Amino acid sequence: MYSEATLIRKIRERFGNAAVEVAVGDDAAVVPLPHGFSAVLCSDLLAENTHFRRESHPSESIGHKAIAVNVSDIGAMGAIPGHCLVSLAVPRDIEDEWIDGFLDGVAKACRRFEVELVGGDSSTAERIVVDVAMMGRVETGRSIRRCGARVDDGIFVTGQLGGSALGLEVLGTDRPAYGAVQRHLYPEPRHGIGRQVAARATAMIDTSDGLSVDLAHILTESAVSARIDRKAIPCFPGARFELALHGGEDYELIVTGPDLPSEIDGVPVTRIGTIVDGQSGRIVLVDGSSESVLDPAGWQHFGG
Amino acid sequence: MYSEATLIRKIRERFGNAAVEVAVGDDAAVVPLPHGFSAVLCSDLLAENTHFRRESHPSESIGHKAIAVNVSDIGAMGAIPGHCLVSLAVPRDIEDEWIDGFLDGVAKACRRFEVELVGGDSSTAERIVVDVAMMGRVETGRSIRRCGARVDDGIFVTGQLGGSALGLEVLGTDRPAYGAVQRHLYPEPRHGIGRQVAARATAMIDTSDGLSVDLAHILTESAVSARIDRKAIPCFPGARFELALHGGEDYELIVTGPDLPSEIDGVPVTRIGTIVDGQSGRIVLVDGSSESVLDPAGWQHFGG
Repeated sequence: MYSEATLIRKIRERFGNAAVEVAVGDDAAVVPLPHGFSAVLCSDLLAENTHFRRESHPSESIGHKAIAVNVSDIGAMGAIPGHCLVSLAVPRDIEDEWIDGFLDGVAKACRRFEVELVGGDSSTAERIVVDVAMMGRVETGRSIRRCGARVDDGIFVTGQLGGSALGLEVLGTDRPAYGAVQRHLYPEPRHGIGRQVAARATAMIDTSDGLSVDLAHILTESAVSARIDRKAIPCFPGARFELALHGGEDYELIVTGPDLPSEIDGVPVTRIGTIVDGQSGRIVLVDGSSESVLDPAGWQHFGG
Repeated sequence: MYSEATLIRKIRERFGNAAVEVAVGDDAAVVPLPHGFSAVLCSDLLAENTHFRRESHPSESIGHKAIAVNVSDIGAMGAIPGHCLVSLAVPRDIEDEWIDGFLDGVAKACRRFEVELVGGDSSTAERIVVDVAMMGRVETGRSIRRCGARVDDGIFVTGQLGGSALGLEVLGTDRPAYGAVQRHLYPEPRHGIGRQVAARATAMIDTSDGLSVDLAHILTESAVSARIDRKAIPCFPGARFELALHGGEDYELIVTGPDLPSEIDGVPVTRIGTIVDGQSGRIVLVDGSSESVLDPAGWQHFGG
């Protein structure tokens, strides 16, 4: 594997920039924040054999995903992603190609989502662990939390659900679902949409753990119930309904509030239900004339 | 081990606070920054069997250290630590007591160093990995970098060197050096001093990798040489000179600039040498009438 000095040099060459006061290579990075904005902070850790397997997940996708999932979290606050720190722990015998692919994924994702890498850490470890911390910005007092959903608000989701879970199922098999594999390996955060709907949203979250679990977070935090319409839920092509309901890592947005456009930036926005008074956190699934209470199912990254 | 929901609940109960707009438990935390200040960002990763061993390092010390080393980095920029994100990956069979001790260490360190935990992530992994990201603040344009050292500047170090390396050597043995063990397990960042000397310092770094390596960073970044006086280097009681020179994880500060007080906040500040013109990054060790060029020795956490 690269020595730490070589790795830091590669990262500095690749990610060095003048737009921040102090970037990669000092004790810490120094980043100005425009007046009237607050810092938005999150981090997300990916561990080998928990979130990915070395033999089935290209390292470029790990780099992409580590950035994308944080961009998604920042976007789900109605905020703008800005700067990140990448901490990487790898086994001593890791191939340089793995690291190069990983850095490619990070670099492309940073460029695409307009995020600057300004620091981080590297270490050896017995298995690969990547932790990315990100700072975004939002007008002070204008972030969209999980706790603001109100009775009679519509419940909207962006895009389609279940694609990433389907992609994980078919990854490494001959089953034809290439769009789903791409979606699993290279998720597309909806931060641009999050930013656009922020002025109207009462609550927002991204679907990292799946619709049932993440909607329940909004409901619990907002102390309300939801009625959702089975037929309205937008399934990814080829994905079973259960994957759309409980599959994680789609990184779509769940938004509550008054009406939203049916499409934003070319991405469909679908009303799937309504916030109602009732037991905090409860989801009622309506299927024609039958109703059932939905049990939020915890998403396991390896489908367990 | 605790379920993720239980862990998040414990963290929210323990670290919940009203001083930030949005803290633990949403997609991201939202933290205002005073006008005229820039955000200072860093992260530091600790991996089991690279930075610590489960059998010899109490989990409380891992929690303490993960916070303290970031406080040290923020302090070495002349900045004030403020908020942190803690990402924790642990094996499925980890004892709840390990987690409780870890959280104790994090909580006490946060209280002591006036840092608020505002988010993070948790995951399973085959070995323990902790990554802490921290945001501090500094008056815009006033951070102290590694690259500002000038010819004729004095070179100063805070406290004593080699204690942490000695502590690691004697950890788990009968050799009497309890102060050194404490120093290894519960390092004391010098951020308060960093803040106080910032107005006068031309360059600053903390000794995480050891005096020889970290001073070389300043010299390389500043394109200068140094002459340091062997007799002036403040050794931790019981530590061999080599440990003071090359041992890591002391988290003292190396400061360059005009004269500094010989003691700040009860901590000795020692002038060990002078910045001179010469080959970028070169350290000349002066011992009475003899001189030698010092080879910066990479610090291995396990002394290797």
